[in-house]
Amino acid sequence: MKTEAFRKHAHQLVDWMADYLEQIERYPVKSQSKPGDLLAQLPAQAPQKGEAFEDIFRDFEHKILPGITHWQHPSFFAYFPANSSPASVLAEMLMATLGVQGMVWETSPAATELEERMMQWLRDACGLPAHWHGVIQDTASTASLCAILSARERATGFQSNESGLYEQARLRIYASEQTHSSIEKDVKIAGLGKENLVYIDTDACYALRPEALRQAIEEDLRRGYHPMMVVANIGTTGSTAIDPLPAIAAIAKEYGLWLHVDAAYAGTACLLPEYRHIIEGIEHADSYVFNPHKWMLTNFDCSAYYVSDKETLLRTFSILPEYLKTGLEGQVNNYRDWGIALGRRFRALKLWFVLRSYGIEGLQKILRRHLALAQWFKQQVESHPDFELMAPVPLNLVCFRYHPQNIDDPNRLNELNEALLRRLNASGKLYMSHTKLHGQYVLRLVCGQTYVQERHVQQAWQLIEAESQRLSRLLSLV
Amino acid sequence: MKTEAFRKHAHQLVDWMADYLEQIERYPVKSQSKPGDLLAQLPAQAPQKGEAFEDIFRDFEHKILPGITHWQHPSFFAYFPANSSPASVLAEMLMATLGVQGMVWETSPAATELEERMMQWLRDACGLPAHWHGVIQDTASTASLCAILSARERATGFQSNESGLYEQARLRIYASEQTHSSIEKDVKIAGLGKENLVYIDTDACYALRPEALRQAIEEDLRRGYHPMMVVANIGTTGSTAIDPLPAIAAIAKEYGLWLHVDAAYAGTACLLPEYRHIIEGIEHADSYVFNPHKWMLTNFDCSAYYVSDKETLLRTFSILPEYLKTGLEGQVNNYRDWGIALGRRFRALKLWFVLRSYGIEGLQKILRRHLALAQWFKQQVESHPDFELMAPVPLNLVCFRYHPQNIDDPNRLNELNEALLRRLNASGKLYMSHTKLHGQYVLRLVCGQTYVQERHVQQAWQLIEAESQRLSRLLSLV
Repeated sequence: MKTEAFRKHAHQLVDWMADYLEQIERYPVKSQSKPGDLLAQLPAQAPQKGEAFEDIFRDFEHKILPGITHWQHPSFFAYFPANSSPASVLAEMLMATLGVQGMVWETSPAATELEERMMQWLRDACGLPAHWHGVIQDTASTASLCAILSARERATGFQSNESGLYEQARLRIYASEQTHSSIEKDVKIAGLGKENLVYIDTDACYALRPEALRQAIEEDLRRGYHPMMVVANIGTTGSTAIDPLPAIAAIAKEYGLWLHVDAAYAGTACLLPEYRHIIEGIEHADSYVFNPHKWMLTNFDCSAYYVSDKETLLRTFSILPEYLKTGLEGQVNNYRDWGIALGRRFRALKLWFVLRSYGIEGLQKILRRHLALAQWFKQQVESHPDFELMAPVPLNLVCFRYHPQNIDDPNRLNELNEALLRRLNASGKLYMSHTKLHGQYVLRLVCGQTYVQERHVQQAWQLIEAESQRLSRLLSLV
Repeated sequence: MKTEAFRKHAHQLVDWMADYLEQIERYPVKSQSKPGDLLAQLPAQAPQKGEAFEDIFRDFEHKILPGITHWQHPSFFAYFPANSSPASVLAEMLMATLGVQGMVWETSPAATELEERMMQWLRDACGLPAHWHGVIQDTASTASLCAILSARERATGFQSNESGLYEQARLRIYASEQTHSSIEKDVKIAGLGKENLVYIDTDACYALRPEALRQAIEEDLRRGYHPMMVVANIGTTGSTAIDPLPAIAAIAKEYGLWLHVDAAYAGTACLLPEYRHIIEGIEHADSYVFNPHKWMLTNFDCSAYYVSDKETLLRTFSILPEYLKTGLEGQVNNYRDWGIALGRRFRALKLWFVLRSYGIEGLQKILRRHLALAQWFKQQVESHPDFELMAPVPLNLVCFRYHPQNIDDPNRLNELNEALLRRLNASGKLYMSHTKLHGQYVLRLVCGQTYVQERHVQQAWQLIEAESQRLSRLLSLV
């Protein structure tokens, strides 16, 4: 494709992109595809001859789009959002065109220096400690893996990097039973063994119980184990529970544990001074992750990872083969030494476009709207005799379930809510997901999509109410 | 930013993007920035109020661009290319707009099914074994980490995931001393210890010596170690050396080692039947990685990772918390279980656009042009009395150095070539990188950039020749 053809097709795409964002509500939120629908439409082999862009794009519209779940739809209430925004998409267009590699400073100085400054902007805008250093990772899974590896190296005097874990004492990691599954995955990757990830009980709000943490550490010390790390959750995936950071930090300090704070979703709320209490005690953390690619209007991938001690991170990951030497080592940041991957996209550009385009006040306004919408929805749940709030709502995730007054059997309630969710998502009018809290099947509704407005949450509530009644009639519950 | 403003600005960007690609040769290939140049121009804090897009974009042009090293410049001969193409940029535009997460099938069925089919297309187009399964990873570093972890789990009966490496026999990994640094990094991440990565000698062509591999394994067995894995390089980073796969595969089979094949750069050459001999014996491999984001005109990130046994990969990485259950487990691929990160971009779309837009024949034509350009350059080096070829040229990387006939001191030659490279890169007219081969400082010139034509390689050679003479006069060597 020549440049003039690129220009023409790119203009066509821009109009499609703008139309898509304008008319996104005409699509079913959750794809109604069945397994194999797309596979059946795709040839088994790549074409030998090049094809016209018009043909490729027609297939995109007719074959791909029906298999898309529309994460940017304002009625996307599932999981946590993976928000985009116009400013972020514009940045992605430039990133793709430049196609630079930011593996070392020299391979694009601006990519490295903009990342350094953006991490400072975010740090200060969120009230994080001023001496922290940040780096963009792809996901919180990877960032938490970096934390676990740094903790492992600090605990073993950097000996596990050298000779492996074979002769080390058993390193123990503590986290609440509500901790994200990525921590278990990361513990396994690091060679530490999932048996050594100790899940700590939570309280009625699904937050870690500090006294249970202390008991687990004491028990491990008696058994000759080496307590290494505690993961505190600021906003669990299940219910955005907030672990008590000051109490956990005190225990971490007492026993010399690495304190990693996972605020992957909720961290964005710290842009609001009135929500900054959720990270009270953060100055005691060794590492911290939050994802601007979730709630901060910045396209995936963009996970912000912060450490209080840069040297430990670098000592964990630095490798300097001849072909990567540039003569500037020590003078500049070479972000390949700050994580796993060597190649790196120019992700800082998205943050720069988003932060400047909205300004901190613009982002705050959107976050406050989301938080208010969740409170409104929570009130509907609480004031309805057949619905039940299942967890506190510290942020903008509402955990609830349908609970008709004449049903008490826990299994029956679980099945009923599972059926309700299936019907709601099949409608295409909204998309929610679920979790289990203390064995109970719970519907999760997150008011955090970039474009969500009052009417979308109101429609969601009306639909949930109507569908629950329809289901009850169908099952002869009423 | 409202949608109409987005439409307007996106159209402006498209014209800038097309102009950039048309006029890219007016930029210095390697950024001429000094450390701190951009940082000094960026405010210390994020703005409180939103700013006009015009202001942001003006800063992009005036502050960011001078700090960009232009990886898409046809005179980019450094490292390995990270190629883009018009088709790939168009796909990235759509990917950014949709902003979908492909973590599980349900969160965008088309993202999952297109990835499955694209991995099949690539597999078949490259002559890889028909029973292999593929998945897109971000980088070869991550893909090789997946291979090492799978090998670790197979070798320990999946016990290191469970209880850690503490009670395991010492697992040993073998790779040539030319192996990419990511293998050492990955071995450390996996808790195996870099002492247990055994570097094997190479021959005069920088390819692994199978008899040295066998000796190392035998020695380890005598010491009670557990030989676990061998990494074979098809195209090393230093000089694109090709390890002898059939001989290595036979040894791997004899000793029960996991055979991982790293063809991160060179794998794209297998689109050409006449180059497929470089992976002869590939049917014996357990895992294989190559990066369409290097030489296959597909924007970073897009690393293709293949395994012969899908179940081992899934058993290494699967985790299924309640909030990720969709009821379709087992019926569809959930790619979060095929690697480290949970969140995933819709990267298959780029491959689809590139493979269809160029067709296999279109890609072959470009690859053959690159390979021929490298041969031309090689001939210039060989026929010049003051230049020296430093390694075979099996593909499109030429390793050479300036070697005036009156200089023989090895250190002097190293310094001279280092100075030559610095001067060449400072000219802005081309960008090359270096490595060391058997202690000798070597210039690396890769003819693999999407847009590189004969004239760019000719200009590079003229510049190198002229600059070497200038340098010699300056140093009074002539």
